[in-house]
Amino acid sequence: MSNAEMLPLREHGTEACCPPLNERPLTAEEAERGAAMFKALGDPVRLRLFSAVASHEGQEACVCDISDVGVSQPTVSHHLKKLKEAGLLSSERRGTWVYYRVEPSVLAAMGALLTGAATA
Amino acid sequence: MSNAEMLPLREHGTEACCPPLNERPLTAEEAERGAAMFKALGDPVRLRLFSAVASHEGQEACVCDISDVGVSQPTVSHHLKKLKEAGLLSSERRGTWVYYRVEPSVLAAMGALLTGAATA
Repeated sequence: MSNAEMLPLREHGTEACCPPLNERPLTAEEAERGAAMFKALGDPVRLRLFSAVASHEGQEACVCDISDVGVSQPTVSHHLKKLKEAGLLSSERRGTWVYYRVEPSVLAAMGALLTGAATA
Repeated sequence: MSNAEMLPLREHGTEACCPPLNERPLTAEEAERGAAMFKALGDPVRLRLFSAVASHEGQEACVCDISDVGVSQPTVSHHLKKLKEAGLLSSERRGTWVYYRVEPSVLAAMGALLTGAATA
């Protein structure tokens, strides 16, 4: 299957939360929303799991595909749910398993927050 | 394993910790280093302070420039130090005040982790 076909390309991903970090000071509300996304990747196990999903074929994976991060399957499931709650992954049940996939627009928006501030 | 030995590991706080998140699953060590950077921005007050510095003239500011985030000056100082420890800000004392400035290379590297995973 083609990744390109499956990616929901949203412009700018600005719905993620905030302007580039160097544009102006964030409001309290923007900071709450933005921090929640960064916090989701601010745990080593979650970041490792996220990269396991993102680097898996089709940028999606189920718990059954992830066995080598040194934590139990319930712990894997717990962290994948947290990543979904933060908007970084979406999920779909297929038969026995829930498949998680990367939300490209949210990642792109988070990246833009940072690279905007880095290059200005 | 052998992967970890082959990585071009760079010094803390100056360059990327990790490959784009979709390139391959991160090692435990990479995830530790990467998560520490994301965690630093995973707090609403810190994210707001960071944007206050990043959007200030010259992408630098001292505590004396930041007065409108709703926390005390000691709390501002505390969080700016945390951002410095994470490698996202550097600091320089000038007379009475310590000035903090954005580390563009670190931000760019964090952004690249995310946008790489978003566009592949």
